[in-house]
Amino acid sequence: MGRFDIKQLGTPEIGSPLATHELLNVMGDYAFTSDRERILKDISLPCPTCMDAKPESFEKAGARETIYFDPQKTKVGVVTCGGICPGLNDVIRAIVLTLRYFYDVDDVLGIRYGYSGLSKEPPEPPIKLTPEIVARIHDLGGTMLGSSRGAPSESEMVDSLEKLGIDILFCVGGDGTLRGAHAIHGEIERRGLKTAVVGVPKTIDNDIAYVYRSFGFQTAVAEAKKSIDCAHVEAKCAINGIGLVKLMGRDAGYIAAAATKASGDVNFCLVPEAKFPLEGENGLLECLHRRLLDRGHAVIAVAEGAGTHLIGESGERDASGNLLHNDIGVFLKDKIKSSLAEKGMKASIKYIDPSYTIRSVPANADDSMFCADLARAAVNAAMAGKTDMLVGYWHGEFTHVPLQAVAGEKKKIETHQAIWKSVLATTGQPSEWV
Amino acid sequence: MGRFDIKQLGTPEIGSPLATHELLNVMGDYAFTSDRERILKDISLPCPTCMDAKPESFEKAGARETIYFDPQKTKVGVVTCGGICPGLNDVIRAIVLTLRYFYDVDDVLGIRYGYSGLSKEPPEPPIKLTPEIVARIHDLGGTMLGSSRGAPSESEMVDSLEKLGIDILFCVGGDGTLRGAHAIHGEIERRGLKTAVVGVPKTIDNDIAYVYRSFGFQTAVAEAKKSIDCAHVEAKCAINGIGLVKLMGRDAGYIAAAATKASGDVNFCLVPEAKFPLEGENGLLECLHRRLLDRGHAVIAVAEGAGTHLIGESGERDASGNLLHNDIGVFLKDKIKSSLAEKGMKASIKYIDPSYTIRSVPANADDSMFCADLARAAVNAAMAGKTDMLVGYWHGEFTHVPLQAVAGEKKKIETHQAIWKSVLATTGQPSEWV
Amino acid sequence: MGRFDIKQLGTPEIGSPLATHELLNVMGDYAFTSDRERILKDISLPCPTCMDAKPESFEKAGARETIYFDPQKTKVGVVTCGGICPGLNDVIRAIVLTLRYFYDVDDVLGIRYGYSGLSKEPPEPPIKLTPEIVARIHDLGGTMLGSSRGAPSESEMVDSLEKLGIDILFCVGGDGTLRGAHAIHGEIERRGLKTAVVGVPKTIDNDIAYVYRSFGFQTAVAEAKKSIDCAHVEAKCAINGIGLVKLMGRDAGYIAAAATKASGDVNFCLVPEAKFPLEGENGLLECLHRRLLDRGHAVIAVAEGAGTHLIGESGERDASGNLLHNDIGVFLKDKIKSSLAEKGMKASIKYIDPSYTIRSVPANADDSMFCADLARAAVNAAMAGKTDMLVGYWHGEFTHVPLQAVAGEKKKIETHQAIWKSVLATTGQPSEWV
Amino acid sequence: MGRFDIKQLGTPEIGSPLATHELLNVMGDYAFTSDRERILKDISLPCPTCMDAKPESFEKAGARETIYFDPQKTKVGVVTCGGICPGLNDVIRAIVLTLRYFYDVDDVLGIRYGYSGLSKEPPEPPIKLTPEIVARIHDLGGTMLGSSRGAPSESEMVDSLEKLGIDILFCVGGDGTLRGAHAIHGEIERRGLKTAVVGVPKTIDNDIAYVYRSFGFQTAVAEAKKSIDCAHVEAKCAINGIGLVKLMGRDAGYIAAAATKASGDVNFCLVPEAKFPLEGENGLLECLHRRLLDRGHAVIAVAEGAGTHLIGESGERDASGNLLHNDIGVFLKDKIKSSLAEKGMKASIKYIDPSYTIRSVPANADDSMFCADLARAAVNAAMAGKTDMLVGYWHGEFTHVPLQAVAGEKKKIETHQAIWKSVLATTGQPSEWV
Repeated sequence: MGRFDIKQLGTPEIGSPLATHELLNVMGDYAFTSDRERILKDISLPCPTCMDAKPESFEKAGARETIYFDPQKTKVGVVTCGGICPGLNDVIRAIVLTLRYFYDVDDVLGIRYGYSGLSKEPPEPPIKLTPEIVARIHDLGGTMLGSSRGAPSESEMVDSLEKLGIDILFCVGGDGTLRGAHAIHGEIERRGLKTAVVGVPKTIDNDIAYVYRSFGFQTAVAEAKKSIDCAHVEAKCAINGIGLVKLMGRDAGYIAAAATKASGDVNFCLVPEAKFPLEGENGLLECLHRRLLDRGHAVIAVAEGAGTHLIGESGERDASGNLLHNDIGVFLKDKIKSSLAEKGMKASIKYIDPSYTIRSVPANADDSMFCADLARAAVNAAMAGKTDMLVGYWHGEFTHVPLQAVAGEKKKIETHQAIWKSVLATTGQPSEWV
Repeated sequence: MGRFDIKQLGTPEIGSPLATHELLNVMGDYAFTSDRERILKDISLPCPTCMDAKPESFEKAGARETIYFDPQKTKVGVVTCGGICPGLNDVIRAIVLTLRYFYDVDDVLGIRYGYSGLSKEPPEPPIKLTPEIVARIHDLGGTMLGSSRGAPSESEMVDSLEKLGIDILFCVGGDGTLRGAHAIHGEIERRGLKTAVVGVPKTIDNDIAYVYRSFGFQTAVAEAKKSIDCAHVEAKCAINGIGLVKLMGRDAGYIAAAATKASGDVNFCLVPEAKFPLEGENGLLECLHRRLLDRGHAVIAVAEGAGTHLIGESGERDASGNLLHNDIGVFLKDKIKSSLAEKGMKASIKYIDPSYTIRSVPANADDSMFCADLARAAVNAAMAGKTDMLVGYWHGEFTHVPLQAVAGEKKKIETHQAIWKSVLATTGQPSEWV
Repeated sequence: MGRFDIKQLGTPEIGSPLATHELLNVMGDYAFTSDRERILKDISLPCPTCMDAKPESFEKAGARETIYFDPQKTKVGVVTCGGICPGLNDVIRAIVLTLRYFYDVDDVLGIRYGYSGLSKEPPEPPIKLTPEIVARIHDLGGTMLGSSRGAPSESEMVDSLEKLGIDILFCVGGDGTLRGAHAIHGEIERRGLKTAVVGVPKTIDNDIAYVYRSFGFQTAVAEAKKSIDCAHVEAKCAINGIGLVKLMGRDAGYIAAAATKASGDVNFCLVPEAKFPLEGENGLLECLHRRLLDRGHAVIAVAEGAGTHLIGESGERDASGNLLHNDIGVFLKDKIKSSLAEKGMKASIKYIDPSYTIRSVPANADDSMFCADLARAAVNAAMAGKTDMLVGYWHGEFTHVPLQAVAGEKKKIETHQAIWKSVLATTGQPSEWV
Repeated sequence: MGRFDIKQLGTPEIGSPLATHELLNVMGDYAFTSDRERILKDISLPCPTCMDAKPESFEKAGARETIYFDPQKTKVGVVTCGGICPGLNDVIRAIVLTLRYFYDVDDVLGIRYGYSGLSKEPPEPPIKLTPEIVARIHDLGGTMLGSSRGAPSESEMVDSLEKLGIDILFCVGGDGTLRGAHAIHGEIERRGLKTAVVGVPKTIDNDIAYVYRSFGFQTAVAEAKKSIDCAHVEAKCAINGIGLVKLMGRDAGYIAAAATKASGDVNFCLVPEAKFPLEGENGLLECLHRRLLDRGHAVIAVAEGAGTHLIGESGERDASGNLLHNDIGVFLKDKIKSSLAEKGMKASIKYIDPSYTIRSVPANADDSMFCADLARAAVNAAMAGKTDMLVGYWHGEFTHVPLQAVAGEKKKIETHQAIWKSVLATTGQPSEWV
């Protein structure tokens, strides 16, 4: 089996209800996507002529002409896990509406509070999700289902799925959640069940492999930019003012980098992927001092996962298994204070940690669209009997990606990529900090 | 001299240029406000008939028919001090535009970085303020002049004023700044100078006496409400989720109280004026526990100055002389965590400290209007030769208030006032927490 | 009976449930407001000593110690009429929550689609309003009850009230609605019923007498300012660019005036209260031409009711009885175009009519607070048996105002008032346009 | 020459200053992009094995290792043309900053008011653009240079370019502007000059071929969504309420379609690409009537260019040569009113035309990033001596596209594309309207 091949519960032999759906009756051949359509993994060619090797590619998402699950008999579960993210309610809503209005699937359960809702004794029983209940949830941040970190054993969760009679489980979540989904699929396979497990990747850090853009990320960046705007104002208003903003980004600094690009006012953008020195001629402290001498103010954006080479990791893990870091923001604030004091510079440092406020807002317009398309792609895949996969987004197209392929790899900023070039161009910070 | 009488540099004998200003030529008697017009301090009467005592009142703000300073020879300084606040640039802009277009006063200097700009060796020399320079500053947060805390001696500052040849000094700032302005006036009087000192009260905490509403406060409340919205979303999305938001409010809890009213989602609003117990049957911890058992989530808004009866004050003061408090937010977060753990309740607490982000945004539409009116009132007063005063706002009217009258008194929430009744009505928190 | 005396259904002899409400048990004397407390109508004194005449005043709003209606037996109706306005849902919500949590009144009906919901055959039957149903309605614009213009006969409406068994009717609406409420009260009195009718004044134009500030107005101004910002950008980007914005304001130009103040970018603010000439040396067209020659761009804000001296009224009335005007915006656009063409000036006029978008957004933070306080005042009044009145807002206090007193008078900008002075100061437009 | 080959002024033989730029000294091979790198035009493969044909592709954007223009001697012009669009100032700013800080090019002129600034007698002389002048322009909507429609003859414009000594001209604009740029290039070539002409595609309608996403489009959609939100609120609040929103989109309905997707509240999305019938069983009027009977309210989004089959084109053209349409919004409003009146249905239609307000706001965070990257790509291309091209965006990569290739083709929604499927899924409108 190829690296990016998608598992299938069985041959999808049922004619899709979309075939007779008024919406699609004039689309002809375009109405459905074949399993054979693929999206190229790489689209940049070294030269126009040298494309000899068979290119890697992903199965393209879309409605299939024949489906695996009989709509009348299919029961669906939706679970949202991990930290909240703008757009979760949009995803839930679009899953429910697509199932109802496109596939005539009525029986949708919302699992409460993440995987803990699939434990033997869930904190709350599942709730039936109807178009009426989800009608206006996209106006609100968070997830109407609640969320949690961690999970019961896959055996306990599959017990619950069996007991609830669930045929399709949509797992909306990040790294840990998708590993959990893969484990659930493993247990399902071991038991010889025909239950589809489809992941909807959620990562405010935008760090899931083969998912170019994750939902909520743009909204989060726009919120993060607001904090940077404030830090900039504070910095400008004080003598040698420094605005220091700590942003989300445990292993990947996409939020910090994108907000830096969007703002144009950041002078130092510190991410986990680029190890900046603190001391020395080209260390952060000296560079900052020079910037203040030169311009009288400075703005620093630091991802929460940056600087582990300086402060170490705390060794502790949260319930999802993520390593907890010592607080780089507070560390930097203190270091900068004492360093400038030593240098005899009167300065004023304002520390801003927007924390949860950048993730708990409702999705913006563009993320709302993205969430709806993503959820529809997930429903199309699941109804066709695909499993052990997530919906990816690659070169502007939705794709099917095996959970296996994502598991080992985390997406990170490569310092030779366009995004980092843009950050360097915007900040003017030393490019050798890598 | 009466408690609310305003000092005057001398008889204003110069006909106001407004008399010939096209704008006012049709307003007739309404164009100018007489010094004898007063605004009642109290407008609520116990009964319609029993108004025997002479009511306390303030001099009403407005353009005077004769002025003290000769526009052609008048040099004006503007200084902004202390923490930044939405609307500072609106105030600066309106002062400059009113001086130029109403009083034909061209010579306006912006003192840089607060009172430190009046020291012998200012961090930056003053800049000339023109309509062109201030044209679009109101689109930006902060103050284009910069700010700082603390002040040189009044003697040093008046030396600078004399050296710069300043006739009118507008001091935009809070408690400390206004005390500074009063001290500057004292020194001016001692030297027999004819320099007007007019305060424009700035307090994001809304805690200056005889100033019903301070500029930027509404904007700050709107921002604070956003943090509470986020805390609410976080709380709802977790099992026994608690959103804890720390808001500005060192001695007065107006921001926390108003944001609580505006949001409608806060269950416990903790302010410096109401001493809540932590322990015991009706203590915060027990009440919170009951709320979680009952509803599964809770939102707490705490002013930074609340709970000094629990944590003590740090004893340290900032450069403006404000007492620094130990961090009540972190204190509560830890107490709540351990208390719920002891009770065996699995809970999830999300702590949000929006800090500077609620004060560094630009003024909203209503605050912009308010700032412009306030600044115009300040210019009218100063040109008429009034000094040692600030512009107040009382029952919807701008007033003149002696700096003396404000000095000793800080405005605080009284727990029998309407605002606190509204907070109790909104939160349902124990009313005996006072 | 005095001009501002409030009608009372009978002696309120029932002890208020608030007396034992935990919230108020520590407030002592402050918990309740006496009928004898009054708010002065005028607070500006010509001089401190000359207050001989008995001042006019309003009954002060607030919870009464004894009430008229027995909470257990009281049935309440809420109706929202006329055009929508930011904050309607906030008002509905606060009425329901105050009735339930303060007065233990459970039986609240929402009348659908304005007074038409009280016709013999209402478009939709009333719905029961519970705390659950109103929980999040304040996040949405508009009114969850729907609205309409016009009304059945008072006889038909009182028939419906009797049939529904309603004891208290809250009428949320403007001029027409309040006249309707007064008529309903008349019919109630004629029938000898004991039904309270309490108005909650709603006017996006802010034009109801004795209501200094109406809910939603600030939100509307903030939205209107956004349109002006856009008009300004458009004007600046074109050669002799003109941004022309038409704003709400049928008889009173408060929105246009306030948005002009808030924006600072308007050069001509045209309101119904100030009759500007179109032609002639100091007419709008000449002034605009001069402005373009001088500065190359201009912004005009015009209230929909301005310029009737130029275009006449259409003579038609809408279902609420409001006179419909010919479209001043389109009229001006055409006149300006042809006038500048005649003068040989190449210009570009951009016409913006934000129309409904400034009234259908949710209330901003400050309006939300205001709505909640207003609604609580209305409930307190109604429970005490007051009727044929509305809740006013005067000098920062909520008051009771007889519907009679409001009926004849519409609040309008007086061109000698502070707001108009500020408009003139901001725009620099000819002050003789009055 | 291939269809997508890029013209080059001559061999770029000058080593790029970026080679020694601190920013890039650690990027090694990644620092520069070769002319031979190409971006595939199509990335969806019918099957993984059948890629025999040489795929079409675009030259990839990026900094080149050798450049054509000597930074010390290069004079650059920037011109913005046509209607304004969110992000214009971001583009201007990034062009200036990239030229200065990456290529050491100081000499940048801003041409005023579009191509008219290149006429013999420009409305305003060009202004020198420096980092200081452009520092905060991205906070403002519009273009600091001003804009206009139409153009002098290419001969006149090239005369001006010669007179000004301009080596590189950046033309920021839409269809007409790019045709103008191509014509300018033609004249330059005829004269044997070595002046590069590089287009930065600007189209709020998102309708330029080979430009997947145009700057400002996301911001415009977010603004458009707000109008739809208002229309929805208005519709819900009235008996048989209809919210009708007219949006930009002369030939392509992307804004209407995207705002429809983002909102989720639109029932009928009418675009130029899909010819809806007005009358008949499945015509808009009948469908709307059924919707109102069924749900009591409806929302319609109509692109300004929709329905030409019903109303005809006006035949007139604006100064850019765009066909002017009769007003479909007003047409529909009238038709719907009379149709429902005929059917005896009492309905209330609210017509909203946000017009310029969706294009004159500042760019949102994501568009700001996009603009900066786009402008940098344009500078890299121009400095390398490329000409007669624009910067495209394809599958997430910036590309070089010959102006020739774009000229004939306009991007439009194809009704079999994903975006239209999403619109149909969201609205439930008849799919046979194509």
